[in-house]
Amino acid sequence: MKYYRLIAPDGSSRLTVESQDGVLADLTSIDEDLTELDDLALAASLSGATIDSLAEGILNNGNADTYNLSEIVEGSKDASGDFQLDMPFEPPEVWAAGVTYKTSEMERRRESDTPDVYSKVYSADRPEVFFKATPERCVGPFEAVGIRDDSEWNVPEPELAFVLYKGAIIGYTIGNDMSSRSIEGENPLYLPQAKVFNRCCAIGPCFVTAESIGNPHNLAVSCSITRDGEEIFSGETSTAEMARTCEELADWIQRHNYAPNMMTVLTGTAIVPPPEITLQEGDVVNITLEGIGELENDVIVV
Amino acid sequence: MKYYRLIAPDGSSRLTVESQDGVLADLTSIDEDLTELDDLALAASLSGATIDSLAEGILNNGNADTYNLSEIVEGSKDASGDFQLDMPFEPPEVWAAGVTYKTSEMERRRESDTPDVYSKVYSADRPEVFFKATPERCVGPFEAVGIRDDSEWNVPEPELAFVLYKGAIIGYTIGNDMSSRSIEGENPLYLPQAKVFNRCCAIGPCFVTAESIGNPHNLAVSCSITRDGEEIFSGETSTAEMARTCEELADWIQRHNYAPNMMTVLTGTAIVPPPEITLQEGDVVNITLEGIGELENDVIVV
Amino acid sequence: MKYYRLIAPDGSSRLTVESQDGVLADLTSIDEDLTELDDLALAASLSGATIDSLAEGILNNGNADTYNLSEIVEGSKDASGDFQLDMPFEPPEVWAAGVTYKTSEMERRRESDTPDVYSKVYSADRPEVFFKATPERCVGPFEAVGIRDDSEWNVPEPELAFVLYKGAIIGYTIGNDMSSRSIEGENPLYLPQAKVFNRCCAIGPCFVTAESIGNPHNLAVSCSITRDGEEIFSGETSTAEMARTCEELADWIQRHNYAPNMMTVLTGTAIVPPPEITLQEGDVVNITLEGIGELENDVIVV
Amino acid sequence: MKYYRLIAPDGSSRLTVESQDGVLADLTSIDEDLTELDDLALAASLSGATIDSLAEGILNNGNADTYNLSEIVEGSKDASGDFQLDMPFEPPEVWAAGVTYKTSEMERRRESDTPDVYSKVYSADRPEVFFKATPERCVGPFEAVGIRDDSEWNVPEPELAFVLYKGAIIGYTIGNDMSSRSIEGENPLYLPQAKVFNRCCAIGPCFVTAESIGNPHNLAVSCSITRDGEEIFSGETSTAEMARTCEELADWIQRHNYAPNMMTVLTGTAIVPPPEITLQEGDVVNITLEGIGELENDVIVV
Repeated sequence: MKYYRLIAPDGSSRLTVESQDGVLADLTSIDEDLTELDDLALAASLSGATIDSLAEGILNNGNADTYNLSEIVEGSKDASGDFQLDMPFEPPEVWAAGVTYKTSEMERRRESDTPDVYSKVYSADRPEVFFKATPERCVGPFEAVGIRDDSEWNVPEPELAFVLYKGAIIGYTIGNDMSSRSIEGENPLYLPQAKVFNRCCAIGPCFVTAESIGNPHNLAVSCSITRDGEEIFSGETSTAEMARTCEELADWIQRHNYAPNMMTVLTGTAIVPPPEITLQEGDVVNITLEGIGELENDVIVV
Repeated sequence: MKYYRLIAPDGSSRLTVESQDGVLADLTSIDEDLTELDDLALAASLSGATIDSLAEGILNNGNADTYNLSEIVEGSKDASGDFQLDMPFEPPEVWAAGVTYKTSEMERRRESDTPDVYSKVYSADRPEVFFKATPERCVGPFEAVGIRDDSEWNVPEPELAFVLYKGAIIGYTIGNDMSSRSIEGENPLYLPQAKVFNRCCAIGPCFVTAESIGNPHNLAVSCSITRDGEEIFSGETSTAEMARTCEELADWIQRHNYAPNMMTVLTGTAIVPPPEITLQEGDVVNITLEGIGELENDVIVV
Repeated sequence: MKYYRLIAPDGSSRLTVESQDGVLADLTSIDEDLTELDDLALAASLSGATIDSLAEGILNNGNADTYNLSEIVEGSKDASGDFQLDMPFEPPEVWAAGVTYKTSEMERRRESDTPDVYSKVYSADRPEVFFKATPERCVGPFEAVGIRDDSEWNVPEPELAFVLYKGAIIGYTIGNDMSSRSIEGENPLYLPQAKVFNRCCAIGPCFVTAESIGNPHNLAVSCSITRDGEEIFSGETSTAEMARTCEELADWIQRHNYAPNMMTVLTGTAIVPPPEITLQEGDVVNITLEGIGELENDVIVV
Repeated sequence: MKYYRLIAPDGSSRLTVESQDGVLADLTSIDEDLTELDDLALAASLSGATIDSLAEGILNNGNADTYNLSEIVEGSKDASGDFQLDMPFEPPEVWAAGVTYKTSEMERRRESDTPDVYSKVYSADRPEVFFKATPERCVGPFEAVGIRDDSEWNVPEPELAFVLYKGAIIGYTIGNDMSSRSIEGENPLYLPQAKVFNRCCAIGPCFVTAESIGNPHNLAVSCSITRDGEEIFSGETSTAEMARTCEELADWIQRHNYAPNMMTVLTGTAIVPPPEITLQEGDVVNITLEGIGELENDVIVV
């Protein structure tokens, strides 16, 4: 099932689950202390039950308030609604992987002063993984993502993201790994500056449990950039094109490295805008991921 | 003045200041709520007074308990003392810079498969800065630093570290930027894995205010590695050899990037053990920095 | 000076100070980390400066956003404004005193089954002080105060409140010590139930420093209750009628008892509605205290 | 089952359960994030399983470290042990009830200037309940409880305590409701001062689930006071002598009143030392409650 976190009119958090198509059932309306996905994950971990079966049990025990998902989405888009979409959960750390799709290796190689490093990592045993963001640098659905003012080439990276709890993948969301290609292209040692900055990461719109996703390696991904109402770029791929599995990335990231509960890992991208496309303030980025939904963010200079 | 944080026998924190040579005056014994340097930094920021003048005012207002610094250090070394040295403060984020000394560029170039990237960053306008550690990955004086079990060449990097508060440098400490040379050398895209892991950063033994340090760019730095009671490596340099200033690094790190109060930045190193030296479990690393003190940590495999 | 805390349109907190008559200067607009009065109180405590001189220094250092106080008040009353008045600070504990005015003793005696206990406490050395509320049970300006559904006689108690920091009185606010007279009157052992319940305490609208108030024992206090737009009760007194001083109450409350910073103490009342007046849902209570301002709350059944 | 919280040598918390007689199984050694009973209570609440079945499931999934309970108790008594008993959980609020046993009414009446109030509450529908303590005023096993220096007659009150979670009783512990009889006896309006002060409440040694206790109204309770190695008082009763049930008290306390999860309620006492017995610094109070265990605390003047 899909879990959405909402901000209620009084500023409080609501944890909801899409119990039927297009209908959000408000778990917080049944149990006022249940406002965070983390609590369901904890209960699942301690009880051995799945997150989805816990949510179903709670829904069966009470009479949940329900909302129309489309209305919530529309009302969040222009901030006109009573309830606003929030990040589905707050990741204590976000990590990301690069060069995990054949295409991404090609593209990064083409534009870089040091193409060999990308080829090498693509075929190496060890993946490229990096610290991507803290909670303060993340945004949720319909919040603005950032582009650095000192970068000439800025792109979104639309990615499947997985969520770890006690070391295991418990679910998925969409991540936008905002990147400065010009800074990274200048020198691979600048990678952290090309990747970590204000509003560098978007997460959402929902969290989908691993049991609901099933196989994460056959999901369609698409991305478009809209400027002044006109689409200036679109691309698509499938997670079937990934050269590494989520499990493999989860394993590498946790080698000798602390992974707090709800740590989120973006798994790399194969959708790469051509060099003539760079994001500008006011652009809108839409990412669609099969089985999860659509993540939309506008762009501001930070 | 120099500020040390101690753990009292009951597990509580004590903020102390070296009011006379070798004597720690316990500020917490005068004001029981004053256990963190952050509070002095906040009060200094809001009042326009310096941290040192605030500490002096507090000492003049009360009758502080005092401790012998040497005894505290000795008792922390073998954990025999009632009071134990702790990290002087908890940095919410640690960042680090690389290739800031001429020597470091040389060394990293020599051992890397992609030497050019180091040369380029040395002479470029933009420095190499990276996200180094979260609080969970930091250790204090006499705590064990970590080496990755999947790395063959592991070295300490003894560095001057500065501390930011509301964007300005308010003081200094010593940082040990534990690094896996073999992982970084294989591919510069592996830098985050070579730098971010469990126990990858040591901080301490004290915090020295900017007003006490004066010029941070003329301080002697030395480092030694001891194995089975025998010194197997020693090196020394001076912060006068830095090719970039602390102010310059502080400026670059904060471009388009959030810098929480007490964020700590390690400024790079020029002391590089030769290829035949790699840290092993049980080794002891000592770093001395003029005007600050000595930071000692043993080594474990993580 | 008077300090008001506002909730901004994005839900964040703003600490403002009435720098000129009717004009709020936004301290948070100068220093984004400064959102809580507690921080000014800490800085004042550590630096020896007064809260007001710190605020003045900050205002002199920057160019604060300003707001019209009347507009903020009007916009908070009907929730139409962008900025809403909040509790001026969050008290970790609220305590209260009773029978501190000659009149209050008379009134409580008249209606109680055990009148002697009030007479005795009035003339005793030891005052009546009690634990009144936790933060979860407090409300701010224009929020609803509560009346118990199991109580027939419910009254507001309009009171001068003082705020302790490191044991000393640093300022004042208005407190409404909502009380169930019928429960208390039945048996003095029921006092905690007559005093501690949901929404039992209102605090606000601002915090005034002790240095601005000067003598707290000569301030006019008035209270009115309005029902369906019509005033059904009004009363007035002066803190000059108090039989005990704030200092005396502060001293008694801290005897052998922990007093956390920002602990707030309501000092008792002399304005007592007659037995035929009991609050109903929808009533509005207004309390005016000279030198502080006006605290308005409507009433709901809890 | 019985749950004990321990403080490990490194200062961290351990949640243990007495899985077999006299053997503590360390749940934290299986799941390092599981250090608090609250997490089990949350998981039980969300999954519909019992706390005990969750603990059993966790024990079956891993190989828990085990400790000898007697050794832990002995090592906590004189602080010689590596592991020390802590409060079994941290109650966000402690409330208490009075005059719930026939005897207690008699005793309090005898010594009070206003005996009628106790008789009345005993036979009234509404019980006497009061706010007893915040976490800062609570102590755990073998920690010192406090007596007020301004009180001549100080007694322990050995009581069965129940724990609320989402409004329901999930388990029990022992509570010592330290009381100043002289202050309360002078005037019932002084009850809060007679009850709320530093170290006024002891909780422990363990938490026993409601399912393990079964009927809480037929448990033997005993209490002794030892001075200089000699027992100066002992008394005993049974919870069968309670005139009100735990459910009834839980219901009254939550009427119109917020009850945070893990809120703890002491249920009153029938063991009352005679007037010639008053606690002195250095005395030791032992309370035994059938099905729970023994809570021991020494006495200091606060």
